Amino acid sequence: MTRTINEEELESRAEARSRMSGLEYMQKVAAGEVPQSGMGQLMGFKITEVSEGYAVLTVRPDDRHYNGIGIAHGGLAATLLDSATGCAINTMMPAGRIFTTLEMKINYVRPIRGETGVVRCEARVIHVGGRVATAEGRVVDEQGKLYAHGTATCMLFQTR
Amino acid sequence: MTRTINEEELESRAEARSRMSGLEYMQKVAAGEVPQSGMGQLMGFKITEVSEGYAVLTVRPDDRHYNGIGIAHGGLAATLLDSATGCAINTMMPAGRIFTTLEMKINYVRPIRGETGVVRCEARVIHVGGRVATAEGRVVDEQGKLYAHGTATCMLFQTR
Amino acid sequence: MTRTINEEELESRAEARSRMSGLEYMQKVAAGEVPQSGMGQLMGFKITEVSEGYAVLTVRPDDRHYNGIGIAHGGLAATLLDSATGCAINTMMPAGRIFTTLEMKINYVRPIRGETGVVRCEARVIHVGGRVATAEGRVVDEQGKLYAHGTATCMLFQTR
Amino acid sequence: MTRTINEEELESRAEARSRMSGLEYMQKVAAGEVPQSGMGQLMGFKITEVSEGYAVLTVRPDDRHYNGIGIAHGGLAATLLDSATGCAINTMMPAGRIFTTLEMKINYVRPIRGETGVVRCEARVIHVGGRVATAEGRVVDEQGKLYAHGTATCMLFQTR
Repeated sequence: MTRTINEEELESRAEARSRMSGLEYMQKVAAGEVPQSGMGQLMGFKITEVSEGYAVLTVRPDDRHYNGIGIAHGGLAATLLDSATGCAINTMMPAGRIFTTLEMKINYVRPIRGETGVVRCEARVIHVGGRVATAEGRVVDEQGKLYAHGTATCMLFQTR
Repeated sequence: MTRTINEEELESRAEARSRMSGLEYMQKVAAGEVPQSGMGQLMGFKITEVSEGYAVLTVRPDDRHYNGIGIAHGGLAATLLDSATGCAINTMMPAGRIFTTLEMKINYVRPIRGETGVVRCEARVIHVGGRVATAEGRVVDEQGKLYAHGTATCMLFQTR
Repeated sequence: MTRTINEEELESRAEARSRMSGLEYMQKVAAGEVPQSGMGQLMGFKITEVSEGYAVLTVRPDDRHYNGIGIAHGGLAATLLDSATGCAINTMMPAGRIFTTLEMKINYVRPIRGETGVVRCEARVIHVGGRVATAEGRVVDEQGKLYAHGTATCMLFQTR
Repeated sequence: MTRTINEEELESRAEARSRMSGLEYMQKVAAGEVPQSGMGQLMGFKITEVSEGYAVLTVRPDDRHYNGIGIAHGGLAATLLDSATGCAINTMMPAGRIFTTLEMKINYVRPIRGETGVVRCEARVIHVGGRVATAEGRVVDEQGKLYAHGTATCMLFQTR
């Protein structure tokens, strides 16, 4: 059930985020009190854990996520990693402090398939500086087997 | 109109690709004679050009691709780049030679929004060796303005 | 003939760079009017070309650059790439605008050996924005054969 | 005191490595029984710890490692990271199994200076598969403050 985020909602979000820390905000998204992003809905992601410097997102891969050769497209793990590292960094941002991803890098170590079942990306902040933050994430299945890992670099801003 | 690719089709594809070069195969996908991947359909990608060592994929960003702050999620450009670099490398593979992505890296230089209109990822092969190939891609709008750029590394295999 | 850069010289450099554009500065380094960096001297790099958005550095690999298995250590091409992309970005900076590398990524496609002879890294700016710049470089031999390629992301600052 | 590794020694090394596991070999290098690589000597690296899947290399930065603006060149941490991740992967290789670096990626989070004192790169294997291995490393000072972090991807081979 896709719930679209309209202009009004975007503004109220930005406004909310200028009064609320990133951690409070992510907790509301995880609790379903704030609708997830369009991409999160499109992909079927769930935010299952957020704490200071840490976030976990999950997805159940199916053939919507497949590439042409019967395994999940690299974009699935890449989008999951980008989301999870962004959430982890968000949990470290005070009210009024936002960020944008500068770059992301992912290694694929095993193919993800429907049979893999739910995979989770566990992301941890590595460094938060004055202008830049970095985080890493690992995509694992329910047995902890590794499928992909990577890092992201974000630039930090003050909302006006 | 999502057309699902079932098990049977996957097998017939793998079989096709063992008799057909990557370029022939990509040309059939571009012509719509072979259905696009699940992820390509989910994201709304179009393959608009394929030639030896080169591929162009396009997408019209909309709020399904958005992150929580009103711009396209990093996963959109990442998935587009992964697809386009993979297509470019595929065009260099003879029949029976396939590959898998080892790693991908993307830099985001400007936010992509609905107003940006159609963006295209132009991907070019950098190197094809005996076991590994690399390619780069740039995501630009219709005026050629740059939004993201990156590279991918693939490992090459022989189908049995 | 290693010429050390002492504290005094560093200050006079920073001062010079606050009056001089990055391009003027790099041209002076290329002309030998300003001593090269310690690392450039240690590695034996030469800056052979600088123009707007472009720089070429060369090195003749020998066994000082080797790893334990008889080929040049990955650090040789990495250091050459980091230098060349930095030079290319520097050529786009007005007086008083400096930068620092946020991250760098390199792909190795062939081993570099002493027999390879002089290799050059040709670096080009990809994007210069308000706060961030990116550049790419390719390490090739005198016949243009590719050995390594990569990108760097720099953050831009104003000298006080 | 640079001790050059000649052709004969290289051959005896390759031969040694075909009978000895990577861990045994790295322990001999760490113990000074096998001379370090040319690059390790040029940079002044020391291998201070090796165990299964783990390696630590150190360096005392000085003005030989500097770039043009009074801080250590990005190539110092990049070369240290490439060495340390390579050592960590080597410790997981049985006799006769060698590897080459496919790609490396490094993030710089703080400038390294002479005053920083000895820095160490602690590298850990992330994944060892049939054909590819990945490892990560962090460059820290003696207080554990982070200066750089990154990952490397290696391709595995059988010596003939």
